[in-house]
Amino acid sequence: MLPFARVAIIGMGLIGSSLARAIRAAMPTVQLVVSDADEDVRERVIQLGLADDVTDGAGAAVVDADLVILCVPVGAMAAVAAEIGPELSPDTVVSDVGSVKESVAKVLGAALPGVHVIPAHPVAGTEKSGPDAGFASLFQGRWCIITPPPRADAMMVEKLAEFWRRLGARVELMDAAHHDRVLAVTSHLPHLIAYSIVGTASDLEAVTKAEVIKYSAGGFRDFTRIAASDPVMWRDVFLNNREAVLELLGRFTEDLVALQRAIRWGEGDTLEALFTRTRAIRRSIIDEGQDTEKADFGR
Amino acid sequence: MLPFARVAIIGMGLIGSSLARAIRAAMPTVQLVVSDADEDVRERVIQLGLADDVTDGAGAAVVDADLVILCVPVGAMAAVAAEIGPELSPDTVVSDVGSVKESVAKVLGAALPGVHVIPAHPVAGTEKSGPDAGFASLFQGRWCIITPPPRADAMMVEKLAEFWRRLGARVELMDAAHHDRVLAVTSHLPHLIAYSIVGTASDLEAVTKAEVIKYSAGGFRDFTRIAASDPVMWRDVFLNNREAVLELLGRFTEDLVALQRAIRWGEGDTLEALFTRTRAIRRSIIDEGQDTEKADFGR
Repeated sequence: MLPFARVAIIGMGLIGSSLARAIRAAMPTVQLVVSDADEDVRERVIQLGLADDVTDGAGAAVVDADLVILCVPVGAMAAVAAEIGPELSPDTVVSDVGSVKESVAKVLGAALPGVHVIPAHPVAGTEKSGPDAGFASLFQGRWCIITPPPRADAMMVEKLAEFWRRLGARVELMDAAHHDRVLAVTSHLPHLIAYSIVGTASDLEAVTKAEVIKYSAGGFRDFTRIAASDPVMWRDVFLNNREAVLELLGRFTEDLVALQRAIRWGEGDTLEALFTRTRAIRRSIIDEGQDTEKADFGR
Repeated sequence: MLPFARVAIIGMGLIGSSLARAIRAAMPTVQLVVSDADEDVRERVIQLGLADDVTDGAGAAVVDADLVILCVPVGAMAAVAAEIGPELSPDTVVSDVGSVKESVAKVLGAALPGVHVIPAHPVAGTEKSGPDAGFASLFQGRWCIITPPPRADAMMVEKLAEFWRRLGARVELMDAAHHDRVLAVTSHLPHLIAYSIVGTASDLEAVTKAEVIKYSAGGFRDFTRIAASDPVMWRDVFLNNREAVLELLGRFTEDLVALQRAIRWGEGDTLEALFTRTRAIRRSIIDEGQDTEKADFGR
């Protein structure tokens, strides 16, 4: 039996449109109603045939849905919640895909009292945005972290978990605050640093932007991929996971300054020891199936 | 006509062994003699049939060669130069593939007076090391930067350029000091930061190493690839391009601290403006053919 018969997706960017495609592929009998605040996006979704119905407003999309998934930037959650609140049925589960969970849980909990709010975060995506960037296999083999609030209905949580498993994801339950700390390390800090270094590189005088682009295969290239991610989504991530990110940034800067000092004083052993240690972590990530062994060309 | 008839490669790691394979593929009549300080590597090179002859010492490899390419870590150049010096013919060109050029030019120039020393740097590679990691197409479409010292023989420089073009590389001439500044941005700083963040992440208490590995698809994964690069090679890069790296690190830290402040004070516009600007650079790198449009999975 399907965990949910009628699903509404609000926001049809990379993740929302991937979700629609994945649902179509894995659970073709699910009734799928979607919406997006942007008229161009709604039109494109109709052209692509991604849903059974595309509504102008978010409120109309959630009527009679038994699962609503908010796929909007974290900072837009409150407005969308206010819009859909009056249209929800008592048994509807409201979930999301945001990269920050504690603030989302707070916002949705406050805006939707009495509703089954069960935030979630599929750790998957690419640097692309928009409904054309999505694809059905995005969640295959990736983790989806569900962060049930205190006193969440266990049956509803299990239904949501089953839904994600059917889309190919591996599901893990986690406390929202811990989620935010883990993702600060594995995702938020890497993004912030990538954005920062790409900014630094494009502001130099002695080296031209054309040269930076031309010789980017030396390593810089990989940072630009990350730094091409959606600006609004990431702005909201940093504003909403402020404490964890700032705490981590402090540690990172400390470690970087120590390396800087080692370079200045020619302490080769310190450098080599760190560079050897980091290599082992790469090995573990490949063993865990979170990346392929295949070498990346160009350095 | 072949630019060089007899080529010696000293050091058969990722780059040296790729070079051997590429020469075999593009110029099969070239006589290829190679050497490596590590006996296991020499044995593996024989098993793989990568050269016409494999010598125990570097000196024996360069006898009668008209091109010698040093593919050893930058810090090992002086010792190798001392070893091969007495065996070189007056018309031999000695080049290398090091990621730092000013210090290499100085070391080789001092150790090999009267020899045609023409340093070069193919901006290509992967995070893998050793003779099994190499492949013939590594230099295809990549840039090879040649940094001729003052009063270098123009004919010899052109022969070296032609040699790299035959291996599929695009050749550019550049001043050594400028090369070191450009590569500090496009390669050295990205590597240092990747090593640093992977180190920071593996030292946390609140988040376990298993969690970091499990959820690495959020962005961290891409840093671990870079941080899996050869430890000794990279130690030598930082020790030998100290000034350019330190200068750049200062700017990077400044920019990062400004971002940190924007997060602390909730300045969303500052964040969004930077994140939008960095996206355009990604576009240029794809247009330049230095990376593919294909999205990278998992974020």
